[in-house]
Amino acid sequence: MPAVLFYSPNDSPTEWERRLRDFIPDLDMRVWPDIGDPNDIEFALVWKLPPGNYEKLQNLRCICSLGQGVDHIFTEAKLPPQVHIMRLVDPWMAQAMSEWILLQVLRFHRQVPEYEDLERQFKWKVLPPPETSECAVGILGLGELGRDAARKISALGFKVAGWSRTEKEVEGVECFYGEKQLEAFLNRTKILCCLLPLTPKTTGIINSKTISQLPRGSYIVNAGRGQHVVDTCLLRALDTGHLAGAALDVFNEEPLPSQHPYWAHPKVSVWPHVSAQSNADSAAEQVADAIGKVFSGRVPNNLVSREQQY
Amino acid sequence: MPAVLFYSPNDSPTEWERRLRDFIPDLDMRVWPDIGDPNDIEFALVWKLPPGNYEKLQNLRCICSLGQGVDHIFTEAKLPPQVHIMRLVDPWMAQAMSEWILLQVLRFHRQVPEYEDLERQFKWKVLPPPETSECAVGILGLGELGRDAARKISALGFKVAGWSRTEKEVEGVECFYGEKQLEAFLNRTKILCCLLPLTPKTTGIINSKTISQLPRGSYIVNAGRGQHVVDTCLLRALDTGHLAGAALDVFNEEPLPSQHPYWAHPKVSVWPHVSAQSNADSAAEQVADAIGKVFSGRVPNNLVSREQQY
Repeated sequence: MPAVLFYSPNDSPTEWERRLRDFIPDLDMRVWPDIGDPNDIEFALVWKLPPGNYEKLQNLRCICSLGQGVDHIFTEAKLPPQVHIMRLVDPWMAQAMSEWILLQVLRFHRQVPEYEDLERQFKWKVLPPPETSECAVGILGLGELGRDAARKISALGFKVAGWSRTEKEVEGVECFYGEKQLEAFLNRTKILCCLLPLTPKTTGIINSKTISQLPRGSYIVNAGRGQHVVDTCLLRALDTGHLAGAALDVFNEEPLPSQHPYWAHPKVSVWPHVSAQSNADSAAEQVADAIGKVFSGRVPNNLVSREQQY
Repeated sequence: MPAVLFYSPNDSPTEWERRLRDFIPDLDMRVWPDIGDPNDIEFALVWKLPPGNYEKLQNLRCICSLGQGVDHIFTEAKLPPQVHIMRLVDPWMAQAMSEWILLQVLRFHRQVPEYEDLERQFKWKVLPPPETSECAVGILGLGELGRDAARKISALGFKVAGWSRTEKEVEGVECFYGEKQLEAFLNRTKILCCLLPLTPKTTGIINSKTISQLPRGSYIVNAGRGQHVVDTCLLRALDTGHLAGAALDVFNEEPLPSQHPYWAHPKVSVWPHVSAQSNADSAAEQVADAIGKVFSGRVPNNLVSREQQY
């Protein structure tokens, strides 16, 4: 049987091997860098494999990302052209992500930073009640994760819109698409949540121009990638008061360096990339299915377009 | 036309009068203490009217609470027996309350206090991912508010149970009832949310005995009444580590005195009774309907049982 290469700085190879063996009892899993004969490897289950290594795997037929994003694969300079790129479409991850997004939306909507400030002063003060039906939440990206979050936030009575590159329809959600409609989408959005894939077209999409198109006093929630945000623009908008707050789970550099201004900024809440951790329990069946297909010469599900990079 | 008495330390009489006049253009509303001839008053729209005043209103036929609770009316020693007691059943309040409860549940479930601690230390550290389907949320009280919260939390994939005095059924929610089943309900609950009415039977229901029946490391969320909680028991359980945290919107004394230990307690978040503020916009139609019924000798909706006091 061909072998599976495993590498991740965050996920447990023992845990994954155990789960995958429920479906493929005789699985031959090789954990980087102890891969034995590189020619045995047909399938790679990876998160941020050190660069320059895919080209050594002559018989590689599929790379499966251990997370929702695949940008870490496309940064590889020499990606063998015949190799399939796939990603996990894990209902557990969508649930975890929607929870985290909802937590941040509720936190800003229900004035948590303001009430926490009052609490620190031992001050009992009632602020004007927020009106959910007037609270405009905007989801950047209407893929698996964006749609799930949009639906759940909409079900709670928020005014939800979404923006995607191509035209989409989601029940109860006002859908904008393409570059031309981005400004209109931003103009109506009070809490902007980024769940975009990272591609050359979405890199730096949260910049001084797009931020200025949000109404004054808006909030930014980023669970996409750090590279979606131009940090200097976000910090400036927070400091001028154009933005009222930000909740960030992803950063241009991770772990976020300890001297980075986000850490101590009173309007920023910093999370260590935990909005939706990948989960061997719920994703193993899907990965085992893909391995089985690849080893028998078939095409696995959830492939990523090389052109669009998502 | 008979007159309506208005009193509230929190709500705007101007706002309420304006909204009610949309339905009753010639409304005669008297704002306490300028009530003119007390015999004109047939309807009282009130929140915590100073004690000893209802008995002066000889023609009073209905008291409507300006909030979801009616305990402030039943504390009145001399409540004329023929007077109807009613409360607002306001979908906006249920929505606001469920939002607040959900915010607190997500806050504890997604380890916000722990991640905020790490953030204060500029420390990037990933904690074990929480498992939503194993997170047991328990709702004390399955009235209008409790049922709405239970349904919404259950829809997000949490393991939700409810407890009420009498037997109830709520789809997707494990229902416990009566004193005998309280212990079993508490034993399985990780995040306990109190949405009970305050009655002689529920006063002090969160005490050292019931808290000890929750598993170690549980959380308490109180949006019922301060009197549901025996503060010394809650503080002791937080300090011994039996409870991991508490989010409180209501207190035995409100405003919470500035020297109260809750304010500075690292495991307690203090809110100034804002989980669900009453809202003239959405409730005026219902109140106008009740006023119309009372003035024409009929019985209004949403009456409260004098015996059960809710």
